[in-house]
Amino acid sequence: MKILINPDTKTWNKELARPVHKMKEIEKIVKPIMKKVKRQGDKALKKFALEYDHVEIDSLLVEDAERNAAGAKLRTELKDAIQTARYNIEKFHKLQEMPAISSEIMQGVTCMRRSVAIQKVGLYIPGGTAPLFSTVLMLGIPAKLAGCQEIVLCTPPDPQGAVHPAILYTASLIGITKIVKAGGAQAIAAMCYGTASVPQVDKIFGPGNQYVTAAKQLATRQGVAIDMPAGPSEVLVYADDTAIPDFVAADLLSQAEHGVDSQVVLVCPSEKFVKKVLAAVEEQLKELPRQKIAKKALENSVAIVMEKMTDALDLINAYAPEHLILAVKEEERAVQGIVNAGSVFIGNYTPEAAGDYASGTNHTLPTNGYARSYSGVSLDSFVKKITYQKITAEGIRSLGPAIEVMAQHENLEAHKRAVTVRLDYLVNRK
Amino acid sequence: MKILINPDTKTWNKELARPVHKMKEIEKIVKPIMKKVKRQGDKALKKFALEYDHVEIDSLLVEDAERNAAGAKLRTELKDAIQTARYNIEKFHKLQEMPAISSEIMQGVTCMRRSVAIQKVGLYIPGGTAPLFSTVLMLGIPAKLAGCQEIVLCTPPDPQGAVHPAILYTASLIGITKIVKAGGAQAIAAMCYGTASVPQVDKIFGPGNQYVTAAKQLATRQGVAIDMPAGPSEVLVYADDTAIPDFVAADLLSQAEHGVDSQVVLVCPSEKFVKKVLAAVEEQLKELPRQKIAKKALENSVAIVMEKMTDALDLINAYAPEHLILAVKEEERAVQGIVNAGSVFIGNYTPEAAGDYASGTNHTLPTNGYARSYSGVSLDSFVKKITYQKITAEGIRSLGPAIEVMAQHENLEAHKRAVTVRLDYLVNRK
Repeated sequence: MKILINPDTKTWNKELARPVHKMKEIEKIVKPIMKKVKRQGDKALKKFALEYDHVEIDSLLVEDAERNAAGAKLRTELKDAIQTARYNIEKFHKLQEMPAISSEIMQGVTCMRRSVAIQKVGLYIPGGTAPLFSTVLMLGIPAKLAGCQEIVLCTPPDPQGAVHPAILYTASLIGITKIVKAGGAQAIAAMCYGTASVPQVDKIFGPGNQYVTAAKQLATRQGVAIDMPAGPSEVLVYADDTAIPDFVAADLLSQAEHGVDSQVVLVCPSEKFVKKVLAAVEEQLKELPRQKIAKKALENSVAIVMEKMTDALDLINAYAPEHLILAVKEEERAVQGIVNAGSVFIGNYTPEAAGDYASGTNHTLPTNGYARSYSGVSLDSFVKKITYQKITAEGIRSLGPAIEVMAQHENLEAHKRAVTVRLDYLVNRK
Repeated sequence: MKILINPDTKTWNKELARPVHKMKEIEKIVKPIMKKVKRQGDKALKKFALEYDHVEIDSLLVEDAERNAAGAKLRTELKDAIQTARYNIEKFHKLQEMPAISSEIMQGVTCMRRSVAIQKVGLYIPGGTAPLFSTVLMLGIPAKLAGCQEIVLCTPPDPQGAVHPAILYTASLIGITKIVKAGGAQAIAAMCYGTASVPQVDKIFGPGNQYVTAAKQLATRQGVAIDMPAGPSEVLVYADDTAIPDFVAADLLSQAEHGVDSQVVLVCPSEKFVKKVLAAVEEQLKELPRQKIAKKALENSVAIVMEKMTDALDLINAYAPEHLILAVKEEERAVQGIVNAGSVFIGNYTPEAAGDYASGTNHTLPTNGYARSYSGVSLDSFVKKITYQKITAEGIRSLGPAIEVMAQHENLEAHKRAVTVRLDYLVNRK
């Protein structure tokens, strides 16, 4: 981890550059996969399962019996924990409901807006080293709350052709029943084009490796929306002497273990504190099972000494971290000064891991600086807001002339006439 | 306009296919323009103004004197109309403010969410055949309401090197002062990369021709967000015998005059009504200045007889129109049955033109079927929603164990330890 002392604004971009992937090369691999799924449907999914997941799949859909048997395979403490998380996530996402708006803007002119569920959504849950049942909660709960009519979940099968019981249990718990044994770019392609087993969806959500990310990007060119552009995960910890070095080190490591391309950034007002944290990182690192990954990620990472809070906040806003931990004395000042971040964790007893799993906030967040313009996944991500208007004869009489004048000055005569024809009719009718 | 009678579901996709542009060819033209602006900044913008707008520009920024003089050049009735529209749009967009959320999800675990303005936004206002001052209102008002810190407006200069006074007047009225004389892909590039005169922005909004659209798409690869993917404008009118053929014809034509690639669709329960509307279209077409454009657009268009409302609603939802006019007797049933549309215009006295200009709703809407998953531009488009959480010592004691169990089962040991280190500390501190 390199250490920078009060770096000049001009150097920030370079010093805080994130690890990037070369998408072009990956697209070359992903495009033929997508094409094959488009043409051959289920047959291609089975072929790719054999090729990439090394298993022969008879039925792509998880059967009810398999789903119902999942709970019995899990320890009670895990099921209890999942239920706690579910309760909290549901509670916080329910608060995000935006009531319908209706207002008579002027006499006879009523404008309305209401949230309508995106009808068909696809959730991608990666397999690989860990069964990400937490992501099932983070995507499935708001999808259900929004009232999406069709929810399909794709996840790769294990070498026995099964889906991890924790994923099946969690999906069942929240009422998701259509689970497809398909992973990687081929799963995204299936949800993009539709196959006999997999419905074509309007929007695709979920994390994944570079192939999944590339496939999601390609899906957007087919008219399918995606949750957000994805990049490696990252955390920035802003800490001062009121923070506890062991906690800070643990938070940095919990991000670093995600992947070799994760980035962790420490910002604090004194070099002395940086050194304490780095010593704690060295110590804790020794005992981590994913030590190798974390070590590699730390190489992409940087500790920055920023004496003044104003400068520190500027730097944080310029970086726009996905996760931001604030463990500083002037907590409220820091919170108010942050304008670019995905999710903010305040105080010594608020590890990022809380938001990753169980506190209630969503863990699907904008990476790679996208926190400047994107929100994390929320209930909003599963609805669109449709506007409505209704104008009475009286309303068009009073608003109509303004529309006519504006349309005329934009040289859109037919727009003007759509009003004129109505006003004339009302005059003649009298 | 072709006429279809009760077409089979399977044929909908084909029969209602929208005109599409070949983006690859256009990208080939746009990429070098963007590159040049990236390298040469203002110098490139001036060069392109000479090449494409046929004018030599001294200062890219509109000066205060030019802006302040604009109002005197406009007729009072236009200024009054713009002020009416501004009032209505502001009123409706203000209602879209989402109050901050804060909830103690469980004892000691507080989750919050608040809307924070996207700091730097760029608005593109096309020039060409018409000065789109209405779009200045539609983008500028929510940007101001959201509290965006930096708002830059780019619009091409006319052959005298000036910006149309209606655009300058409207921008001044709502408090936008940074106006750049730059159009086309080069303007998008300037906002994407930043130049000496044009700040780099976080998100770019606004309509434009195919070059602008392609440049916006390319900007997304540079980490800049855009309002939405753009396509040609479209309207679907669902009308029955209670509708007035002259009104319907006028609404279809007001969409058709937008561009040769616009699409208009008429859905109604009887062929007799279709014929009445088509006769009215023929009649009204004669007098239109943009007759040629409208005629061409009508060639892409289709009238569909759907006897049953259920079938009609299915078809409308499958098409997902940008603008939907409902002029049917069972109005409420139709409104409730619509799940995919950008903006809905209800009843005989509600022309699309009302929403295009002055009723209060936004006119920047999802085209090309994106209404299935995208909302139109709203206040939401100019903010991101940041989540926050604060956990107390008591909170982590009660929630911590659930996090530990979940992290452990996802094989993320460092995530678990970020909690354990805190729980241990609390035990030892006692």
